[in-house]
Amino acid sequence: MSLVLDPAAQDLLFREARTANTFTDEPVTDEQIQAVYDLVKYGPTAFNQSPLRVTLVRSQEARERLVQHMAEGNRPKTLTAPLVAILSVDNEFHEELPELFPHAPGVKDAFFSERTVREQAAGLNGALQAAYFIVGIRAAGLAAGPMTGFDPAGVQKEFLDGDHTPLMVVNIGKPGPDAWFPRSPRLAYDDVVTTV
Amino acid sequence: MSLVLDPAAQDLLFREARTANTFTDEPVTDEQIQAVYDLVKYGPTAFNQSPLRVTLVRSQEARERLVQHMAEGNRPKTLTAPLVAILSVDNEFHEELPELFPHAPGVKDAFFSERTVREQAAGLNGALQAAYFIVGIRAAGLAAGPMTGFDPAGVQKEFLDGDHTPLMVVNIGKPGPDAWFPRSPRLAYDDVVTTV
Repeated sequence: MSLVLDPAAQDLLFREARTANTFTDEPVTDEQIQAVYDLVKYGPTAFNQSPLRVTLVRSQEARERLVQHMAEGNRPKTLTAPLVAILSVDNEFHEELPELFPHAPGVKDAFFSERTVREQAAGLNGALQAAYFIVGIRAAGLAAGPMTGFDPAGVQKEFLDGDHTPLMVVNIGKPGPDAWFPRSPRLAYDDVVTTV
Repeated sequence: MSLVLDPAAQDLLFREARTANTFTDEPVTDEQIQAVYDLVKYGPTAFNQSPLRVTLVRSQEARERLVQHMAEGNRPKTLTAPLVAILSVDNEFHEELPELFPHAPGVKDAFFSERTVREQAAGLNGALQAAYFIVGIRAAGLAAGPMTGFDPAGVQKEFLDGDHTPLMVVNIGKPGPDAWFPRSPRLAYDDVVTTV
């Protein structure tokens, strides 16, 4: 075998894990999310910029405000998931860089003085962190249901501010009945990987 | 414990894993990369769009062409890493959607007829897949050294085509002497996660 990761972990994180569309009633606790964060916060980002921010939507009132901005097909699952998280990026992440990248404190001004540069960096590195977060949800024995089918401007206005851009909304919980479609096919290795 | 993933796997993928800046001479084989791909290809993307493409830079000639487009500080490690991968996205990924998302073949035309929409979707979903790939490299017992310090237009022109946008370059191998800086601090849970 070419992988060192044990097969049970491979199954938990990738092979058996699926995007869930239904959930049981079992609650997802703050302690679980904290354990997920305390694992995936170590995933790498450029200059350790760590732009990802997480808004946990727990109250029924907030849940109803959120679904108003979501695609119709996503509303029922987002209304019934035990927990919903809005993943966004902080486009002003550079303010934390002297603390986050202490061995080169000049990075903040040398690379990130322009907002457009920060937005591009935050989009890429925040997406990396969103993927680590999805993997972390699975590491907690939970299913994630990431969605991009929502109005970003509406979600931003409702829950964030002008410095935060939403990336995705993630339903979180134990999978319920008929939680997923059959697994869709993946591209073959030779269609994805080339060598020069 | 709130996590189901066993502690050894947590260490391998996140807690002990580090971005390596030096590497041993031990080769990284195509079989290892195939095993990584066959694991991480299951990571979720929107509509299973799977835009990530991987260019393995193996020949010395290609390695020298690549470093011409990289930031000075990144050149020595990219010249000496056992394997280097250019991660890019295919902005024409929609052509594969009828095969990749067979239960809703209309998605290709309903959502992805515009190139700018595809570029945005590929940027986000390709970055998710790049993170899965980094996690997969670690699952193979290897260290990854992802870098965004390069000229994207130059790398695109040298190795890709107008339909493929480079996301990052990743050095891959077993960590060598003095492979990393001390671990930088991470943001506290309460600075990242809020509840509504």
